[in-house]
Amino acid sequence: MSAYDKDKKNILSRLRRIEGQVRGLQKMVDEDQYCIDILTQISSVMAATKKVGLIILDDHIHGCVRDAVKKEGGVESIDELITALERFMK
Amino acid sequence: MSAYDKDKKNILSRLRRIEGQVRGLQKMVDEDQYCIDILTQISSVMAATKKVGLIILDDHIHGCVRDAVKKEGGVESIDELITALERFMK
Amino acid sequence: MSAYDKDKKNILSRLRRIEGQVRGLQKMVDEDQYCIDILTQISSVMAATKKVGLIILDDHIHGCVRDAVKKEGGVESIDELITALERFMK
Amino acid sequence: MSAYDKDKKNILSRLRRIEGQVRGLQKMVDEDQYCIDILTQISSVMAATKKVGLIILDDHIHGCVRDAVKKEGGVESIDELITALERFMK
Repeated sequence: MSAYDKDKKNILSRLRRIEGQVRGLQKMVDEDQYCIDILTQISSVMAATKKVGLIILDDHIHGCVRDAVKKEGGVESIDELITALERFMK
Repeated sequence: MSAYDKDKKNILSRLRRIEGQVRGLQKMVDEDQYCIDILTQISSVMAATKKVGLIILDDHIHGCVRDAVKKEGGVESIDELITALERFMK
Repeated sequence: MSAYDKDKKNILSRLRRIEGQVRGLQKMVDEDQYCIDILTQISSVMAATKKVGLIILDDHIHGCVRDAVKKEGGVESIDELITALERFMK
Repeated sequence: MSAYDKDKKNILSRLRRIEGQVRGLQKMVDEDQYCIDILTQISSVMAATKKVGLIILDDHIHGCVRDAVKKEGGVESIDELITALERFMK
């Protein structure tokens, strides 16, 4: 069982919606739709993807990081988290 | 013909790869894979999507915005661009 | 005269406020204030700095880029802009 | 004593440098320097400020959040962290 188990359905439905948006983007590009409309859709994909990341992050800290702190201090788990955060924030 | 016509193949192939990554994410979540690995894949989707946005943006300014400036001053076209940029940068 | 001449007073007053916030941050750190309060102030400095960047960007495109397009096509000016945008969006 | 105590000197010296950069920006604007140079300096201030945020964040999670988890489960401390992270990532 994963730390994000309770949000699994929510996360999967968000990812399916993002997949649909990315497919929609291909159609827009294929049909030569207007750049600004494409850029708006791209911004929406980015925001939706970031939101999924924040949900995973929330569950990860409440779950895995907390468990690691309780069990063995959590120093490595937190170092790993910080590295992931830096990548996510770029 | 769109301003991004010359990059169309490149953009479409990037979008297909992003679609594949998002489908891969669903599989990872479905299989309860480790949060940090999912977060890394999410960061990668965000970076790839941003890159597509930058290509569209580049083509849009070199194409549509330049044309608008030449034809009728371009003030409205630039206002529209700035609004899209603010959304894209959030 | 610069492209941002009409916003100069506004920009300078924003920068002075940001300078004050950064000095305030030093005081907070010096007094061992709570991390989350410092992080909130840092987020506020980042948002305020980004806003100044967007004002400069707006004036630059409406001013310098438009002029360059009218005078000599603007290709180099737009390439320079895209490079600056990528750096600004990181 | 704060969670970032061991990095205090480093953080303060970074903040002083940022303060200097923001003052430099005012001079650049006052002297009508070129927009793109100003935008580059603004990007540099944003990156430097983000870096300070990441140091504080690192110390906060290794310090305050870990302590809270050990002492009383840490749920509230983690909720507070997530809220700060969302603001910091905007």
